[in-house]
Amino acid sequence: MNIVDWAALDPGERDTMLRRPPSQRDAGLQRDVADILATVRREGDGAIRDYGRRFDGVELDAFEVPQAAMLVAGSELGRELKQAIRDAAGRITAFHEATMATPLASVETAAGVHCETLNRAIDGVGLYVPGGSAPLLSTVLMLGIPAALAGCRQRVVCTPPDREGRVDPALLFTASLCGLDRVYRIGGAQAIAAMAYGTATIPRCDKLFGPGNAWVTTAKQQVAAEPGGPAIDMPAGPSEVLVIADDGANPAFLAADLLSQAEHGPDSQVLLLSDSVRILQCVIGELELQLRDLPRAAIAMQSLANSRLLLMPDIDTAMVVSNRYAPEHLILALREPRRWLPSVFAAGSVFLGDWAAEVLGDYCSGTNHVLPTAGAARAWSGVSVASFQRRISVQSVSEQGLRRIGPCAATLARAEGLEAHARAVDRRLQRQGVEVAA
Amino acid sequence: MNIVDWAALDPGERDTMLRRPPSQRDAGLQRDVADILATVRREGDGAIRDYGRRFDGVELDAFEVPQAAMLVAGSELGRELKQAIRDAAGRITAFHEATMATPLASVETAAGVHCETLNRAIDGVGLYVPGGSAPLLSTVLMLGIPAALAGCRQRVVCTPPDREGRVDPALLFTASLCGLDRVYRIGGAQAIAAMAYGTATIPRCDKLFGPGNAWVTTAKQQVAAEPGGPAIDMPAGPSEVLVIADDGANPAFLAADLLSQAEHGPDSQVLLLSDSVRILQCVIGELELQLRDLPRAAIAMQSLANSRLLLMPDIDTAMVVSNRYAPEHLILALREPRRWLPSVFAAGSVFLGDWAAEVLGDYCSGTNHVLPTAGAARAWSGVSVASFQRRISVQSVSEQGLRRIGPCAATLARAEGLEAHARAVDRRLQRQGVEVAA
Repeated sequence: MNIVDWAALDPGERDTMLRRPPSQRDAGLQRDVADILATVRREGDGAIRDYGRRFDGVELDAFEVPQAAMLVAGSELGRELKQAIRDAAGRITAFHEATMATPLASVETAAGVHCETLNRAIDGVGLYVPGGSAPLLSTVLMLGIPAALAGCRQRVVCTPPDREGRVDPALLFTASLCGLDRVYRIGGAQAIAAMAYGTATIPRCDKLFGPGNAWVTTAKQQVAAEPGGPAIDMPAGPSEVLVIADDGANPAFLAADLLSQAEHGPDSQVLLLSDSVRILQCVIGELELQLRDLPRAAIAMQSLANSRLLLMPDIDTAMVVSNRYAPEHLILALREPRRWLPSVFAAGSVFLGDWAAEVLGDYCSGTNHVLPTAGAARAWSGVSVASFQRRISVQSVSEQGLRRIGPCAATLARAEGLEAHARAVDRRLQRQGVEVAA
Repeated sequence: MNIVDWAALDPGERDTMLRRPPSQRDAGLQRDVADILATVRREGDGAIRDYGRRFDGVELDAFEVPQAAMLVAGSELGRELKQAIRDAAGRITAFHEATMATPLASVETAAGVHCETLNRAIDGVGLYVPGGSAPLLSTVLMLGIPAALAGCRQRVVCTPPDREGRVDPALLFTASLCGLDRVYRIGGAQAIAAMAYGTATIPRCDKLFGPGNAWVTTAKQQVAAEPGGPAIDMPAGPSEVLVIADDGANPAFLAADLLSQAEHGPDSQVLLLSDSVRILQCVIGELELQLRDLPRAAIAMQSLANSRLLLMPDIDTAMVVSNRYAPEHLILALREPRRWLPSVFAAGSVFLGDWAAEVLGDYCSGTNHVLPTAGAARAWSGVSVASFQRRISVQSVSEQGLRRIGPCAATLARAEGLEAHARAVDRRLQRQGVEVAA
């Protein structure tokens, strides 16, 4: 890895430095995913069974994990792991509960006109939990806890099984803990199709959540773009971190944080911005050292090829660059990190100071780890209880209220050429004995 | 129009009754829109100028409405209209301000672990205001006011001009009042492309808002599905209302409310549910009467062909049907409307009682009129200040905090097979002199 001097770059080179790794979502993938979606929509459970055989190499009698397997899952886990899951769940619950919207007391916008909002849970939500090399039990916590706090009635989990048709017991234990009783052994684009359209066995969901590979995220985008399709939590891309470090930061910690992001996948991206060339040089040395005995070193090294070590003229400039990049995770490895918080405008989640390892946010500080990637933090927020709710506005209007604001509405309706709108007011005013203009 | 007895329908017939009018978004439209998007992306302002000539029949020197035109717009309006716009703006501001999220005070999830959230405005937002037969100044209020309250720095309006290249002065006056200084005379899919990609003259936006015809809404869906594309407010469809009326309701008011929705466009949908056959019969008579001298009667009659008068066994059933349909607007023309509010689970905005004409919400009760249609109310909320903001989570962790929650994170990371994650914690614990397991 080499150090790039930001001040020496022209605007085009700066753009290149902040570009995300190329997306895998090409036209071929789009077509393949569209084909899976259409097939599941048409053929339902049979198609899902076929894809399971083809992609996961598994033949299932029933998609749903048997209740017995859910119940015994805990007994297959060590005490330490179970306690860690419970502790994490407790802190995630505490933070998500504290950030829940409080219903608004009524606002009287005019005499006799009361406006308010209702918070209502989304009825049916589908939670996708990736499988693959490891069971992502933390994703179960991050989706299951806010869904339960929101009060969603129908909470469905889809996750790919292993070749024996099994789902990791740690994942099942976590699901039970979050009150997620229905776990379906379905992965990939066919899982998204199942939850988007519903089948004989899988209920149709109003909103889909969760990370996934290119197939899953492409499928989510496609079903969300269909007329009447489900909503999705956010567009998803590979995980990423941007670190801003000053001369007082600890290079070993910085390297460890960069590697913890880089091991996610070959398309993960890590950026380190510092005004200290010494720190950048030390981090290069530390990366080499720490990579040596890392189990996923091969993945991390591929990812580091997408990565940047940028020498900044000062921390102010680093903040500007960070806001432009809009990282999923932002680590402020600065001496007075809180002083810089007012300068953060675009990021998914922020980690303050040397002890706030990004990993803590992945698992158990309490914040959510389902966060906007690929620059989506410019317009999207991470998952919260609000992601599982809707706001409904309500207005109640008395006779007096109508007299107060009705003429205003009629005037504006006529300015827009909508006479029937105006008359819906006039007719009510006339009923009250008010003379109307038109 | 005929009255349909809900109790006599089988499940398939009930589905049909609640089906939306067929969407115009066919494959041909999808292709045409994709072509416009690609052309604008490639050719920028030149392409927009070409489409303006072709679709709007107008040749413009500059897209932006001159500041002089903005300044004199007010002098071209009557005093009553200006006052109505100001009054509406006042009430919309009051309600939207009251429903703004308050920043969360820090939550200590463990000793030394503090989590909080920041609210940040989306930097660049694009507001689409439809043109056509009438200037939709109310849409300017409904988008411009929350965008300003949220604190969005760059607020851009696109709206189609007339054949002389002019934008209605009422719309310009309203834009100025909302602090929207940059109004571009661009309509259709090319306006969405301009704001999504940016051109030499139009700034690129992070999120796009506003209603529009099939071209505009298709373009919004397409740019939102692109990797790195802007967010959009919500999927949009034709306007709709569902009314639940009991025997005490006023048939003339009901008919007026149905017609005010029906005049929006031939694909608008109106549903009236009542447990009183007398009311339904009276409404049919009233509709005929009120249609006679309505300027947009032709449109309203087309729309009424999509519409339903449904006799319900009781109001409880009507509430269930309403939640299943998830209407944009829900009018509860009931004797004790507030008593039924707890049964409302899916709707965009609710109107309580005989005097709460839906038209009041369109213009000036204070609530927002940009609302989810076509059943999207199952998963989406209407526009609010929150639509123009993001939530960023923040965690600060002390040395003690790391000792408290670090081991939990390391345990979970290892359960997920992510060793570099675990080591980012272990390295910090070791630095504090804590012995680590692995």
